[in-house]
Amino acid sequence: MSRFWSPIVEKLVPYTPGEQPGQRNVIKLNTNENPYGPSPHALEAIRVATGDGLRLYPDPAATDLRKAIAATLGLDVDHVYAGNGSDEVLAHAFNAFFTGKDAIVFPDITYSFYRTYCELYSIQADKIPLDAAFRCNPQDYRRPCGGVVIANPNAPTGIAMPLEDIARIARQNPDVVVIVDEAYVDFGAESAVSLVPRFENLLVVQTFSKSRSLAGLRVGFAVAQPHLIDALQRVKDSFNSYPLGRLALAGAVAAWKDREWFDRTRQLVMADRDGTAKALQDQGFDVLPSAANFLFASHQKVPAEKLLRDLRARGILVRYFARDRIGNHLRISIGTTEECAALLEATGSIVRE
Amino acid sequence: MSRFWSPIVEKLVPYTPGEQPGQRNVIKLNTNENPYGPSPHALEAIRVATGDGLRLYPDPAATDLRKAIAATLGLDVDHVYAGNGSDEVLAHAFNAFFTGKDAIVFPDITYSFYRTYCELYSIQADKIPLDAAFRCNPQDYRRPCGGVVIANPNAPTGIAMPLEDIARIARQNPDVVVIVDEAYVDFGAESAVSLVPRFENLLVVQTFSKSRSLAGLRVGFAVAQPHLIDALQRVKDSFNSYPLGRLALAGAVAAWKDREWFDRTRQLVMADRDGTAKALQDQGFDVLPSAANFLFASHQKVPAEKLLRDLRARGILVRYFARDRIGNHLRISIGTTEECAALLEATGSIVRE
Repeated sequence: MSRFWSPIVEKLVPYTPGEQPGQRNVIKLNTNENPYGPSPHALEAIRVATGDGLRLYPDPAATDLRKAIAATLGLDVDHVYAGNGSDEVLAHAFNAFFTGKDAIVFPDITYSFYRTYCELYSIQADKIPLDAAFRCNPQDYRRPCGGVVIANPNAPTGIAMPLEDIARIARQNPDVVVIVDEAYVDFGAESAVSLVPRFENLLVVQTFSKSRSLAGLRVGFAVAQPHLIDALQRVKDSFNSYPLGRLALAGAVAAWKDREWFDRTRQLVMADRDGTAKALQDQGFDVLPSAANFLFASHQKVPAEKLLRDLRARGILVRYFARDRIGNHLRISIGTTEECAALLEATGSIVRE
Repeated sequence: MSRFWSPIVEKLVPYTPGEQPGQRNVIKLNTNENPYGPSPHALEAIRVATGDGLRLYPDPAATDLRKAIAATLGLDVDHVYAGNGSDEVLAHAFNAFFTGKDAIVFPDITYSFYRTYCELYSIQADKIPLDAAFRCNPQDYRRPCGGVVIANPNAPTGIAMPLEDIARIARQNPDVVVIVDEAYVDFGAESAVSLVPRFENLLVVQTFSKSRSLAGLRVGFAVAQPHLIDALQRVKDSFNSYPLGRLALAGAVAAWKDREWFDRTRQLVMADRDGTAKALQDQGFDVLPSAANFLFASHQKVPAEKLLRDLRARGILVRYFARDRIGNHLRISIGTTEECAALLEATGSIVRE
């Protein structure tokens, strides 16, 4: 605390990202990264862009990337916004749509950055409890509010909502923006992008960090009708004209276009997720049904904190959230087939001790 | 305008960046980019970082980059903050230090993004007129206010303030933060970084876009005492944990360490700036004394708008601001020696017509 700080800074409770260890000999299943590298075409495009051209500013409108995304989705370019990771896209969206007077709503258990944005922008938030099975019920979102945020699949549970539930939430709240955060959608959920033409209040946010394996490049995007995209552009152009550098733009365009690599790697992740879930259940874990690239699990006998500690002692990092209702769960990212096997060997050994 | 927009979005007047033309056969002297490419070591470091490692998140604290900068400046790492271009660093600084109740002050003619940030964060601003010679007088900043922002050298004038004037402004306003935006400092002004140990209210912001020739990579940083850096980190961690990707971090560290390339290229730019200024004066231009990588000039007979148009017709882009007091000036970035010669040939021909 310092007397020079704005009133807002003192109150902030910043988001805590997962640990990024310095050493290389750990199995890192704590930040939901993709175990497979990015598309070789993306790497090649970055290499081509690495030259004297870096002296020049990038395209502030990220036109080529937005066009590539829009073309695949069958939309016009004015339906797409691109930013410096989906976290930045979400931050701008909270500022663009939720700084009115009414409280917004989101689940009590979800991506914890949402409440951080609310603090940053002085947005009131009401948290709607997930049910006992950690499911999100659309009827709970039929209420007066300033906006709705749904992660689909949800994090850290991994549970997906059916598309008709998303449509119902958008239909029930026609006067406020409904943000659907689809960071993990490519691992088994159905995207709400198909609903965008029908709902003027729907903003769908996706990222290149997970299914495109480019967490280190920082690219995210939003899909919505142009009047919402326009608001994001206005906020962006009042904050930082050039959120995406030339290498991020070049890499993201090529990664987006490499559909074959995208499909192959996400199928591998999904297969290992399903196999790992089954094996963990055989070891006495309760595992939530996951449509993401991670599992959310608790053991029937061994506390999560002990598992976290013992896994770390074996060089395996997973994520633990010391919070109400989920304080006995671990979030385990799906690694390579070998990493999943090492995890299962370790958990098996720990729970047998 | 849309009924879904937050109250703030409608009122925003976004910053307009300089044009980034698609075609390559123009001489681009409109966005103050460096005519020489980045350090070859920076390009090599980016190539090395272009691989499967991009699947992983970057270091959210940008530790290696902040350490490299701090070491050169003789400071500890807790005196340095790094962000996605100096525009993002400035945006967070306005939010971290200026969202109290008092109006902040900055010159009437300066980087126009400052007033945009004020709109974004609902900060009141009082503009202090530069004098008739476009100089900034420190005694004008001895007044109750919520903060001070000084670009040194100023933009678009290019005029630098002596270090003792910056110290005086910091001393006169001990209870508010004084931001010194040094985007162009390496082209001939004296950095206020040396004042940081003496003034707890001083925040110095620099960029890799100009003197390090990495506008396309998006890296900026701030230097201040730890209690101010801490506030920036808190805002950053409530907005986007990872503003700098792995390629930006790798390239910036290597560019920062290549002092020889940095010195050689900025000397070339300064020499061509001084030669171009003299030649423009010989053609009847009034040219402000520049300590930046651009010149701010008006012709005694030919209106700036005509010069802008005629230069564009010859394939040369410069920047024009249709604003009070400077509506007859052009801001001309310093290009290569050949580009400066082409500019002078074109201006000579236009003013002789």
